[in-house]
Amino acid sequence: MVESFRSRLIIALDPPAGIGDSLGWALRIVNETKDLVTGYELGLPMIIRSGGLNNLARLLDNMGDEKLKIADIKLADINDMMILSIEPLIDIGFNAFTAHSFIGYDGGLRDLGEYLSRKNALLISIVSMSHRGGVELFDKVMDRLVDISIRSGSWGLVAPATRPWILRQLRRLLEERGWRYIKIIAPGIGAQGGLPGEALKNGADFEIVGRLITRNSFPRRKALEINSMHKNILKTIESWR
Amino acid sequence: MVESFRSRLIIALDPPAGIGDSLGWALRIVNETKDLVTGYELGLPMIIRSGGLNNLARLLDNMGDEKLKIADIKLADINDMMILSIEPLIDIGFNAFTAHSFIGYDGGLRDLGEYLSRKNALLISIVSMSHRGGVELFDKVMDRLVDISIRSGSWGLVAPATRPWILRQLRRLLEERGWRYIKIIAPGIGAQGGLPGEALKNGADFEIVGRLITRNSFPRRKALEINSMHKNILKTIESWR
Repeated sequence: MVESFRSRLIIALDPPAGIGDSLGWALRIVNETKDLVTGYELGLPMIIRSGGLNNLARLLDNMGDEKLKIADIKLADINDMMILSIEPLIDIGFNAFTAHSFIGYDGGLRDLGEYLSRKNALLISIVSMSHRGGVELFDKVMDRLVDISIRSGSWGLVAPATRPWILRQLRRLLEERGWRYIKIIAPGIGAQGGLPGEALKNGADFEIVGRLITRNSFPRRKALEINSMHKNILKTIESWR
Repeated sequence: MVESFRSRLIIALDPPAGIGDSLGWALRIVNETKDLVTGYELGLPMIIRSGGLNNLARLLDNMGDEKLKIADIKLADINDMMILSIEPLIDIGFNAFTAHSFIGYDGGLRDLGEYLSRKNALLISIVSMSHRGGVELFDKVMDRLVDISIRSGSWGLVAPATRPWILRQLRRLLEERGWRYIKIIAPGIGAQGGLPGEALKNGADFEIVGRLITRNSFPRRKALEINSMHKNILKTIESWR
């Protein structure tokens, strides 16, 4: 399993709509950036458009052994169905899965957590979302969602870079309850409005960046630039302590 | 689009774990049952294991034009990501999608609903779940979930056959608010504990049956049997009015 992380950057590989060769598109970005990142996140758009599991296997293999390879499929089903869905994805090399804590513990997230633990894969639970609708229900029950996530053995929690106060609230909650080892992973950088580094500053451990890198004509240059912004910010945070 | 329904039966095509040829397995069941059902539901397990979009297209095509073809992928992401995920699925013939109302309206379910409406496809929103964990959060906010679903233009709502009191509560809620035209679709029949017909009796319009039919050595015989149970129950319900 993935153990030592240096970079705080995870790249989300969401292919542009209408692109012909999603696999070729993703391989090119992976090859340009793999020495610069902690890992990659593939959502349903990439999984559905990849042209089958063999293609995905090739892409995951190309990332190298030590990378975090997140299937960001936001699982939100009953236990059996979630396990049936991810079994073939584990077989081809995914080692982390996002799931919604909203489904609850009993017959839901608990069983997924136990299964992933047996398979040496990581559970990353969603406790908040980056779009405006996230305030309607999620933010009102975040405590409960965190509780369900931790009891289910989550390695990390997803909370949005677009709402920094939620990141701070979540980090405080984890510290209060002695759950410092739990990672916070923040999507919503760039296209959705968050600035690179903002989430780290507000308590996140990793930032997920998609279009800002993958739609740039020079993905490697952009990833290097973000890494150096992260390095500066981490130095500043360190100096506060 | 799908307009006139006779049967109240929707078959969930979830391939058994470890089966080699998921497509062949599904085609056989579809060919045996397609004159008996309103439609089929395909979850992530089938979509991921099908061997690519061309195979899925063949399966959907085989069902016939008038069928409800539900991608039960329980969408629970931000607007862009959901739309990017389903675009290729609409192209190959899916005409209905399940999504979680708990993601909220603004930038979430509303945008999905608008997109599906433009594409002449149906939104089926999940307002309750069949596993035990469904009581932890879902059941406490069902009113809100129904409200988000209706405002987003849902054609139908998913609620579990395993908890008939939820079905009754939901039907009552829809009647009180004048939303009689909204369909209730109930999974959880058979393997999960609900009996065929129970959900119809408690207010559902359609029952989703999976393993009870698909793992039976004679899927057609089982589907016929369930249809005739449904017919009897509908006659009884009619006679109450």
